[in-house]
Amino acid sequence: MRISELSEATGVPIPRIKYYIREGLVPRGDTALNPGGYDDSHVHRVRLVRALVTVGGMPIDAARTVVDEIDADDPSIPKAVGPAISAISRRPTSDSSSSGDRAEKLVDSLIESRGWTIADDEPARAAFSDAVATMLDMDLADMLGHLEVYAEAADRIADADIASIDGEADLSAIVAKTLVGTVLGEVFISSLRKLAHADRARRMFWPQ
Amino acid sequence: MRISELSEATGVPIPRIKYYIREGLVPRGDTALNPGGYDDSHVHRVRLVRALVTVGGMPIDAARTVVDEIDADDPSIPKAVGPAISAISRRPTSDSSSSGDRAEKLVDSLIESRGWTIADDEPARAAFSDAVATMLDMDLADMLGHLEVYAEAADRIADADIASIDGEADLSAIVAKTLVGTVLGEVFISSLRKLAHADRARRMFWPQ
Repeated sequence: MRISELSEATGVPIPRIKYYIREGLVPRGDTALNPGGYDDSHVHRVRLVRALVTVGGMPIDAARTVVDEIDADDPSIPKAVGPAISAISRRPTSDSSSSGDRAEKLVDSLIESRGWTIADDEPARAAFSDAVATMLDMDLADMLGHLEVYAEAADRIADADIASIDGEADLSAIVAKTLVGTVLGEVFISSLRKLAHADRARRMFWPQ
Repeated sequence: MRISELSEATGVPIPRIKYYIREGLVPRGDTALNPGGYDDSHVHRVRLVRALVTVGGMPIDAARTVVDEIDADDPSIPKAVGPAISAISRRPTSDSSSSGDRAEKLVDSLIESRGWTIADDEPARAAFSDAVATMLDMDLADMLGHLEVYAEAADRIADADIASIDGEADLSAIVAKTLVGTVLGEVFISSLRKLAHADRARRMFWPQ
């Protein structure tokens, strides 16, 4: 197929497809292989890149790491997924916070009460501690009273996420599902929380 | 207090405080008011801006809208919160998706089954539809089987969020809590989901 047909098949505008190609995220068309240069493998790749970068907001460099690993002869889940997840994770600020110790204790006890086994250097742990310390510094400690609700929600969502991957045999499909699931799952939960907020705001400010 | 004391009180490095001031997010110090130029109101403001921008990732322009509204004589919740929430929300891509109609039907029926009242033009609705359409386009429809779990989690979290604001009388405190809660709540749920994933990955790949 030609690039115009690739655009039609994926719904992605031609200039954006050219941008993906320039950035090394989608292979160039090869007219030696077929008349238009593009085939179904390009359709799949454009859809994956669109999901990660355009819908999910993953940085280009992280997406390149992902597709390079998927294209490798022997793709590895940790190698493809690890750096990508890390790239889309928030960095802790490394500011000195007077509440840092208290925040870390709160996070430790939450992790313990969920029964989670988490490495000390897991990046999400530092980002979480940082957000908790910020609330403590701002005298918003009452807003932390519901962290258990957040943690239980995260537990249910993680189980649902894992269930979607469980039983999948193809390694490159696992990588794609893990990443697309992680990235679009963020959009899901963020959008759904905002929808639930919009519903509550309507009830509070415009009660019927 | 002087800027060095402001930095010590907030844990925010001096160059970053100067950046906040340059961007109009924190008022300049005024030595006519007190010897060092800065006071407790600056401590509060620096903490708020740090929470929104540095920890929460809110764009500078959106943060400026927020602090301008908080500084107004008669701060309004919808005016301060609306544009800020909108600025940190993902934009739908406006790509033509062959699964767009199917995605919208799925989203409508999810909203109906939750009993939510949501405006048709609520931005989170379009972002959510877009993510759902992307999964349908990628033949990952099986990953959508757990959207009810996500929606129920969002419902619980929204109720916990609202409970933190309920009973608060001071309007500028409501604005600050709503925004900090929305922004840091995203960090909470995203970090907790990643922690739960890390726990599940450890069980799957290194079972004890």
